[in-house]
Amino acid sequence: MDITSDIHSQHISRQFNQELDELKTHLMAMGGLVEKQVQDAVGALLDHDSSLAERVVANDRAVNDMQIKIDEECTQVLARRQPTASDLRLVLAVIRAASDLERIGDEASKIARNAIDLIEADNGNRGFVEVRMISEHVRRMVRDALTSFARLDTELALKLVHEDDEVDNEYRSAMRSLMTFMMEDARSISSVLSVMWILRALERIGDHANNLAEYVVYLVKGLDIRHTDPEDLDKDMLEGKS
Amino acid sequence: MDITSDIHSQHISRQFNQELDELKTHLMAMGGLVEKQVQDAVGALLDHDSSLAERVVANDRAVNDMQIKIDEECTQVLARRQPTASDLRLVLAVIRAASDLERIGDEASKIARNAIDLIEADNGNRGFVEVRMISEHVRRMVRDALTSFARLDTELALKLVHEDDEVDNEYRSAMRSLMTFMMEDARSISSVLSVMWILRALERIGDHANNLAEYVVYLVKGLDIRHTDPEDLDKDMLEGKS
Repeated sequence: MDITSDIHSQHISRQFNQELDELKTHLMAMGGLVEKQVQDAVGALLDHDSSLAERVVANDRAVNDMQIKIDEECTQVLARRQPTASDLRLVLAVIRAASDLERIGDEASKIARNAIDLIEADNGNRGFVEVRMISEHVRRMVRDALTSFARLDTELALKLVHEDDEVDNEYRSAMRSLMTFMMEDARSISSVLSVMWILRALERIGDHANNLAEYVVYLVKGLDIRHTDPEDLDKDMLEGKS
Repeated sequence: MDITSDIHSQHISRQFNQELDELKTHLMAMGGLVEKQVQDAVGALLDHDSSLAERVVANDRAVNDMQIKIDEECTQVLARRQPTASDLRLVLAVIRAASDLERIGDEASKIARNAIDLIEADNGNRGFVEVRMISEHVRRMVRDALTSFARLDTELALKLVHEDDEVDNEYRSAMRSLMTFMMEDARSISSVLSVMWILRALERIGDHANNLAEYVVYLVKGLDIRHTDPEDLDKDMLEGKS
């Protein structure tokens, strides 16, 4: 290879790396917006702030637009750069991650819509303690999932896979106590159901954060750990099967 | 191009087309399994057949395995064939579709788990009429979505996008009548909640069928119609904006 073509190929490769970095940057921007949507949706409920809840519902469009833009960028990188190996895995992981972030956005929007109903019904704060607790947990999971993606930190990612089980336990326990409330006071049923939908949305946000963490492992290790039991996973990792 | 290299390139291209056809065949096989999972999960509930419900829960692993296999095949096609234009769109659409089918499988498994609880509680057939009606509707949607994918039939795909709104209306009306049941009889709360989770799962299956239909439009027209209002969509299509 002569010097000119070497410089040319370095230039191409620098441009390509820049494009891959941009994909990650845009994914992180989308993640930041989605985090804020979840925070605002729960905040709107806890502070009885209907107008904030309405803003969350309206902002969901911005989340959707970001996903479409990221998907287009990824498709263009695939078509023009034809990446292989870890570069290909990055692009595919970004496509998958954007899809999960979009679904987290949907859940935030559902939380906000139920918050509007609950604020209007003005029927006490039953279940709000549980909503606060589980929302703090899943918001930390989303934040950690995004951090692990940005830093390609598989240790942090694997920690998350375990935390999802904790959220599931908290969720089930909260659902049981809400069911008891319902049985004790039939007039509360409609409001308690709204709180249940909110808890279900939070539990699903935890699932999506878990998916994000799995993509980080796929990205770094080239290992697809979806549908793998967390216990087996640790064993596989320790035994160096990845 | 001399004859030998021409024959060689025809051979490559025939092989490539064969690989793309195989991706579609495997996606259809996964779709067939997922359709059966939904049918069996609902059938288990309506026929009070716990052992069928348990088989559905156990079979979810097969669905997950199929998704991982399809994803691997798609990644290999991307890495080795570096497809562009409509071939690239096909591979990306298959990745997305497999993800939605996997989630439909998850929902079928949730339906089966709730069916097991309901059969055990033996607390009457409240809400079963609604479950039957909505399940028939969403199963038809899943079947049509797969057909539209296999035939690249955008007309059928666009019909589905409208049907999802109908399912949402049926779902909301069913939820309202179930809430009334709950208020009238506090002892029914736990069972009615299980039926509500089943209806919610069916409603989400309709959403995923809708996503599948959107990928068909993306695939054929190169147009991303996710997050587009169905009304605007018809207008765009009629005005030839695609």
